[in-house]
Amino acid sequence: MSEKKIGALLSKLKAADPHIEGAALISSDGLMIESELPPYLEEDRISAMSAALLSLGERAVEELEKGTPEQVTVKGEKGYIVLSAAGGEAILIVLTDSNAKLGLVYLYIKNISKEIRSMLEL
Amino acid sequence: MSEKKIGALLSKLKAADPHIEGAALISSDGLMIESELPPYLEEDRISAMSAALLSLGERAVEELEKGTPEQVTVKGEKGYIVLSAAGGEAILIVLTDSNAKLGLVYLYIKNISKEIRSMLEL
Repeated sequence: MSEKKIGALLSKLKAADPHIEGAALISSDGLMIESELPPYLEEDRISAMSAALLSLGERAVEELEKGTPEQVTVKGEKGYIVLSAAGGEAILIVLTDSNAKLGLVYLYIKNISKEIRSMLEL
Repeated sequence: MSEKKIGALLSKLKAADPHIEGAALISSDGLMIESELPPYLEEDRISAMSAALLSLGERAVEELEKGTPEQVTVKGEKGYIVLSAAGGEAILIVLTDSNAKLGLVYLYIKNISKEIRSMLEL
């Protein structure tokens, strides 16, 4: 795994869509691996909160018998937060503005998650 | 507010799309208002967990400066769970199978949320 390569992937994701404001990869226990988030956001808090949200999503899919969790999307008034399992050990977090086309964002995430997954394999 | 009317709305939502497996309305503190969920699910646990998930989603949108939270969607291997704020006091939870067209489900939810909102006003 190379931090630089992951950073380049996150930058590519940001560049792909002007509505994507930032992206980061965190470990499933809530620690930042690589961040391309806007500088005004506090990385530590974001990563801890993302892990908590995906973990609660996990409980929800278990409880509601929906198999293993793949993604949690939070829609706010000013945009979307999309958390995606990228391999068993990492979470990809993507922030968009409110004009983002969610279908397109999901497609970019799907493609980049595959690349991240193969990078995280030792 | 009438429980019967809310029950009828939830049934209408289920009937609108064969991929919608169930729907329920819970209070924002996690108590069931009306349920059209599949009978094998435990209502109390579902409602408590939904409130917790939406509350964590709320923290996420605050932290990431995305305004007020409107919706949390959890994608599992076997389907989707969609939690939507329906007025300030209630949460609409919708379960679908994995073949659901999410765009269509969001549209149905948007329309029914409006109706629920006006019903919940005294």
